[in-house]
Amino acid sequence: MAQAYTDNRPQLQELIESLGESKVVTNPATIDNYRWDRANDPGAGIPIAVVRATSSDDVQTTIRFASSRSIPVVARGAGSGLSGGSSAVDGGIILSMENMRDIEINPLTRTAVVQPGAFNAEVKAAAAEHGLWYPPDPSSFEFCSIGGNIATNAGGLCCVKYGVTADYVLGMKVVLADGREVVLGGPRLKDVAGLNLTQLFVGSEGTLGVITEVTLRLVPAQRPPTTLVATFSSLDDSTAAVLGIASTMRPSMLEFMDHPTINAVEDATGMGLDRDAAAMLIIQSDEPAEYAAKEIEHIEALCNQHNATDIFATSDREEAEAVIAARRMAIPAVEQQGTVLLEDVGVPLPRLGDLVRGMEHIAQDRDVMIAVIAHAGDGNTHPLLVFDPMNEDQKRRAHIAYGEVMDLAVRLGGTITGEHGVGRLKRPWLVDSIGEDALELNYRIKKALDPQNIFNPGAVFDPAAIAQQDPAQSAGTP
Amino acid sequence: MAQAYTDNRPQLQELIESLGESKVVTNPATIDNYRWDRANDPGAGIPIAVVRATSSDDVQTTIRFASSRSIPVVARGAGSGLSGGSSAVDGGIILSMENMRDIEINPLTRTAVVQPGAFNAEVKAAAAEHGLWYPPDPSSFEFCSIGGNIATNAGGLCCVKYGVTADYVLGMKVVLADGREVVLGGPRLKDVAGLNLTQLFVGSEGTLGVITEVTLRLVPAQRPPTTLVATFSSLDDSTAAVLGIASTMRPSMLEFMDHPTINAVEDATGMGLDRDAAAMLIIQSDEPAEYAAKEIEHIEALCNQHNATDIFATSDREEAEAVIAARRMAIPAVEQQGTVLLEDVGVPLPRLGDLVRGMEHIAQDRDVMIAVIAHAGDGNTHPLLVFDPMNEDQKRRAHIAYGEVMDLAVRLGGTITGEHGVGRLKRPWLVDSIGEDALELNYRIKKALDPQNIFNPGAVFDPAAIAQQDPAQSAGTP
Repeated sequence: MAQAYTDNRPQLQELIESLGESKVVTNPATIDNYRWDRANDPGAGIPIAVVRATSSDDVQTTIRFASSRSIPVVARGAGSGLSGGSSAVDGGIILSMENMRDIEINPLTRTAVVQPGAFNAEVKAAAAEHGLWYPPDPSSFEFCSIGGNIATNAGGLCCVKYGVTADYVLGMKVVLADGREVVLGGPRLKDVAGLNLTQLFVGSEGTLGVITEVTLRLVPAQRPPTTLVATFSSLDDSTAAVLGIASTMRPSMLEFMDHPTINAVEDATGMGLDRDAAAMLIIQSDEPAEYAAKEIEHIEALCNQHNATDIFATSDREEAEAVIAARRMAIPAVEQQGTVLLEDVGVPLPRLGDLVRGMEHIAQDRDVMIAVIAHAGDGNTHPLLVFDPMNEDQKRRAHIAYGEVMDLAVRLGGTITGEHGVGRLKRPWLVDSIGEDALELNYRIKKALDPQNIFNPGAVFDPAAIAQQDPAQSAGTP
Repeated sequence: MAQAYTDNRPQLQELIESLGESKVVTNPATIDNYRWDRANDPGAGIPIAVVRATSSDDVQTTIRFASSRSIPVVARGAGSGLSGGSSAVDGGIILSMENMRDIEINPLTRTAVVQPGAFNAEVKAAAAEHGLWYPPDPSSFEFCSIGGNIATNAGGLCCVKYGVTADYVLGMKVVLADGREVVLGGPRLKDVAGLNLTQLFVGSEGTLGVITEVTLRLVPAQRPPTTLVATFSSLDDSTAAVLGIASTMRPSMLEFMDHPTINAVEDATGMGLDRDAAAMLIIQSDEPAEYAAKEIEHIEALCNQHNATDIFATSDREEAEAVIAARRMAIPAVEQQGTVLLEDVGVPLPRLGDLVRGMEHIAQDRDVMIAVIAHAGDGNTHPLLVFDPMNEDQKRRAHIAYGEVMDLAVRLGGTITGEHGVGRLKRPWLVDSIGEDALELNYRIKKALDPQNIFNPGAVFDPAAIAQQDPAQSAGTP
């Protein structure tokens, strides 16, 4: 239960004196803007303050203050998270990185040194000024922060060929629970001196420390892609086509939208999508022209082989943009049909058909709408479970289905989260996804780095289970 | 000081009974074959036994036995390590994975499930049967194991475009200090459920657990490359050309050999290399034909701009293989000139010239030969320090130079090891490379996972420093 707002300024006096009035927000109306991310976690608490840091020093000061008083700290980028990873915690401090967004591009080493609050799109734009490209492209790239991308190891549309955020993180600075800032990795393409702590922090969802700077790898600009759109009258045909394509080549995009999604987008845009289609694939090749033509030919043949009802290919940038805009529109379009619970389950590619089919059954059984979009080429789906927020029974059924979708993915050898993170919403399913032994290993590392559990408590890990983890107990004796 | 051999069979009785006589080697002559890797660590100890495991069960049995008696365990793949990461430890057990080498390719998910003893070349060959490619290609690929590759996050020649071992590891099974086998990750291209423990184990050099199985990502076969060889009469010109190439495109190979290396290879092969050249670059493009031609043209222009004395390009496979064979011959060729201390330092690319120039000065100052080969495109160099083993003074000076090369790399913002690992030989320099705070974080994680320090003690970390690390001490209080 969330606490009521109280006057916390006396308790915060020392912090306010160190950082200055302007950086420590205690006014309830403003604080309210920082309590939720896009997951709208109903369990979000009421923090005692929001600190808007402008430097590493501010972050260190805040963490020292919090740590010495056992006050929880939830780091927050742009608040675009989809699993409740930056929900506020009762009595905690929200440490907002929104004012730390410097970007420095080094074209010689093809790296960017970036503060965590910078938006993904800002990094892309800064790189583009030098003819360079930062590939990871979550659909939210225009309003999500690099810090959040790293916290969740964000993916996106081009990841099927170009990899996820982790593949572009060479180093970082992190502030630990004791307030020290530690440098990990750096602008070196190869480095095996000591454990790979950089990669341990990628995807750690703010549970181990606060990232204050990252060094990202950039690559030369992407070549203009050729785009192919194919529709199918059968779900199974569409997922079989995905498997055929992904197992024989490397498209630079391989996206999927199902029948409910196509119709939601068509409702919202009237752009002329085929309302009868069971599924639609959007596929790109960004190889050099001659070779791209071959790849597109190969993709077309595979789509035909799997009974595509319509195929359309284009090298025209604007035509392609319109189709991809439809894909990026999918979530807002579906959101117009009700309140959405957004899933992020993934499976090994040969199980994609079983996953999509199984979700269709869950939708029928629970009588809720499930619209599925997917980064199909890497087996990562985003089922959107839609319910009428006024209909308590439907809401209850949607939440049951939300869990059933994760159970299904795990049964198929998959994961409960491909790129959004566990956050608070998926925490109960983590143990089923990775198993008790791996979870216990997670606890050991969490405890070793953040023994008081001040960093994002309640996200990813169960605080009670961490507390039980006894660091003095010999984990090495059988 | 190494202990003398003693009869350890009584002490090992329980283990011998569990595993059977054939898997537990106690005969000194055979044990001797397992005491050193290619680093020939003079400090290698005398183990009480070599266990040649054939299954996960064997590994678990061995570790439970060792852990309950605080016996050190050094996991060993093919013994091709170059930093002493698998040197034997006095009184310890060498756990050899040489008989665990199953390889299973799944062409649909483009993954390989591999036991750690399989050679890199065997994985490549098995993948090739399905038209697939496992890119990481350390020069030792024909005689190094996948387990060792993962333990050191091995690199190679194609890494400049295709990344290092870590980029291809999707999951693994590891046996922990308490004998449990834990599954981490799996055949999923995206997965952010919990901390990324898979990547924590990559590059951990056997200090956290023993890998019993890995899931590797495969990609479609590489296109036939075009190869360009350029020679330079000035070192500075050659490193400037490297920077020009690597910062404007992505060659699939960008290798460097200096004057002493060229001459050593020419001595060994008489293949007609230019003995007067200060440096030689070997560069490849594996883009589709038309585009590769453009890339090679661009590379040629850059080499000319930096005063290349000779340029030769070929699309002929055999001609290219001959040149690359010269590069792969470099270490054995230089070894014909004396005993070699092999370095592995790396720097951010703009400092490559300073590094190579600085090493030349160290060679002059210490009057030892330093032959430099480099995966130049990612700033990773392998200086070979050559000395006459009979000349004690030269040997001493070579060892001083070995340290000075690492000091130089660190001063230039680099690393003491790009792809060989810290092992035992580079341990004294680790703190300078990553800093005290990052090292202390390493200790915390090591202690959390292996509290008795039974896994590869003495490698990477100083056992005394780990012992001092108190897990009960609150690391979170400032």
